[in-house]
Amino acid sequence: MFELLNQRPELAELLRQELDDVTSIFEEQLTSDIPAVSELCVHINRYRGKMLRPTLLLVSSLGCNTTYLKDKKGLTKKHRIVAAVTEMIHMATLVHDDVLDLAQMRRNGPTINEQNGNQTAVMFGDYLISNAFHLCSKAGDPSINLRLGDVTNTLCEGELIQLSHRDDVTISEETYFQIISKKTASLIGACCELGAILAGAPDNVVKAMWQFGCSLGIAFQIRDDLLDLMGEQELLGKHPGKDMDAGEFTLPLIDYFGHTPESQQAPMMAHLRSGDAVAVRSELLASRSVDRSMERAAAFVQNAKDQLDVLDDSDARLLLSEIADQVIVRTS
Amino acid sequence: MFELLNQRPELAELLRQELDDVTSIFEEQLTSDIPAVSELCVHINRYRGKMLRPTLLLVSSLGCNTTYLKDKKGLTKKHRIVAAVTEMIHMATLVHDDVLDLAQMRRNGPTINEQNGNQTAVMFGDYLISNAFHLCSKAGDPSINLRLGDVTNTLCEGELIQLSHRDDVTISEETYFQIISKKTASLIGACCELGAILAGAPDNVVKAMWQFGCSLGIAFQIRDDLLDLMGEQELLGKHPGKDMDAGEFTLPLIDYFGHTPESQQAPMMAHLRSGDAVAVRSELLASRSVDRSMERAAAFVQNAKDQLDVLDDSDARLLLSEIADQVIVRTS
Repeated sequence: MFELLNQRPELAELLRQELDDVTSIFEEQLTSDIPAVSELCVHINRYRGKMLRPTLLLVSSLGCNTTYLKDKKGLTKKHRIVAAVTEMIHMATLVHDDVLDLAQMRRNGPTINEQNGNQTAVMFGDYLISNAFHLCSKAGDPSINLRLGDVTNTLCEGELIQLSHRDDVTISEETYFQIISKKTASLIGACCELGAILAGAPDNVVKAMWQFGCSLGIAFQIRDDLLDLMGEQELLGKHPGKDMDAGEFTLPLIDYFGHTPESQQAPMMAHLRSGDAVAVRSELLASRSVDRSMERAAAFVQNAKDQLDVLDDSDARLLLSEIADQVIVRTS
Repeated sequence: MFELLNQRPELAELLRQELDDVTSIFEEQLTSDIPAVSELCVHINRYRGKMLRPTLLLVSSLGCNTTYLKDKKGLTKKHRIVAAVTEMIHMATLVHDDVLDLAQMRRNGPTINEQNGNQTAVMFGDYLISNAFHLCSKAGDPSINLRLGDVTNTLCEGELIQLSHRDDVTISEETYFQIISKKTASLIGACCELGAILAGAPDNVVKAMWQFGCSLGIAFQIRDDLLDLMGEQELLGKHPGKDMDAGEFTLPLIDYFGHTPESQQAPMMAHLRSGDAVAVRSELLASRSVDRSMERAAAFVQNAKDQLDVLDDSDARLLLSEIADQVIVRTS
């Protein structure tokens, strides 16, 4: 997946093993002898993709405590449990997001709402949230429960603010950044922060790693929103244009309206009203809004990478830097 | 609310104060400076009714440790936090239940899905679950997080089993009891159990209180299902017949089909298919199924009350017994 890992087989092998263990914990937590539940748990395993959040947590810990890689036994069960929890929280948000967006497709397959109906998707999302907290309690550290409870509160706030701005073509850039900070960056920031905390890093490092994750998360979401507007279904594994269909106007459009004189906005408004995704796309391409949005994302990546200065040189630090770069060049 | 409390002003006053404190903790947890969130939090306060779950937790603790009432300072902040958590979990299930049932009305007012749309209701339910776990973590006792995480897992399992049996006229009594044990009795059982644990009760008492709550919870749900079939909208504060509309067949109907020869089932089947609630109601009344369902509920109440033998005599014990009796005579 990452260039650096090709050149560092030891780190690659350690990460592979750790992520396998995280996957086992994840799957064990969701094992159920109730058919109505276990069938959904099998389905959700197909959703799991890049494991970005557990990876960031583990690599952040490795970057904050370079002795981990040396003795190979540094990462603990607690790391793996919390990593699995972050992935489960993420999965729960995907399941409910698909309900909110009436999405039919994810990772080239049907969503749970498409296959089992909205009601089952609502309840199964609840089951995942509940299991995430249940699993988190097994780490036996109330401060982590408290931290992740705070993150999921924030995450829901972001979604609620976004819902309250549906069909709001005049949504401000400030509100857009508030939404994506809360709904996306909060969890990714917490992953990097918790990685640092579990590594026993000092406060300034914990704070820098949190900032690293938040900036990376914002860049990630800007890229996600760009892909939804401009991406190809085959690469995405899902229908593009979902945000527009849901009445969610993201950075490229906000930028477009911010840079286009009001007297010239009528055609774009008409395309948005009629839901003409192709026309919206070509208007955006003709403007500089896509480029400018990418530049904004790149600036957040740079800010993220600047935070890594608090870490000693290590392969893990290099990998964190590469992950940050990767976030804005991905096509899926 | 309860006869006994009229005769025991001291206990009544203590409970009133404690429940006021629980309400304050509940409301403080849901305070938000984000308008999109705070408006929903105000709405949810209208949902709060009998506070059955916090009441059971507090009275169970009082019943398990009779010194509490004597020095009036026995109940701790931890009791009140956990009591507020159980109410918040309950509220979250109501919000998502209303989405699942397409319910328009609760406590004589519009539901969140009716007023703000399904999507906002899904996300606000998530916000309540998340806040429940966040608040629970503030009690600083991982074993309580673990216990309540287990309860919410179970609760979701119950809902998922119920969803998988929608429109299943042949649903068995066994499955019905599995569903209501999981979706209703698990939380009520845990309230009484946690009350005992927080009072420092020995294992046999903790177990008996859990059983008390489970049996009471099953009786409560049977009564709820009966009221949905037979109750009056004005008393219920919501539309009756919701279960039938949702394709959920509950004890009176399961009993009806179990006691009616197949050759005589056609009229009832026709009424169910056409959704003729009035005809279903009169068929049921003409049979003994309503009476028999009430008898089943009464047997669970008796089982619940039998568990109280492990407790010393006290006003709290008498109150628990009265609450159990009340569960099956309520009309709303």
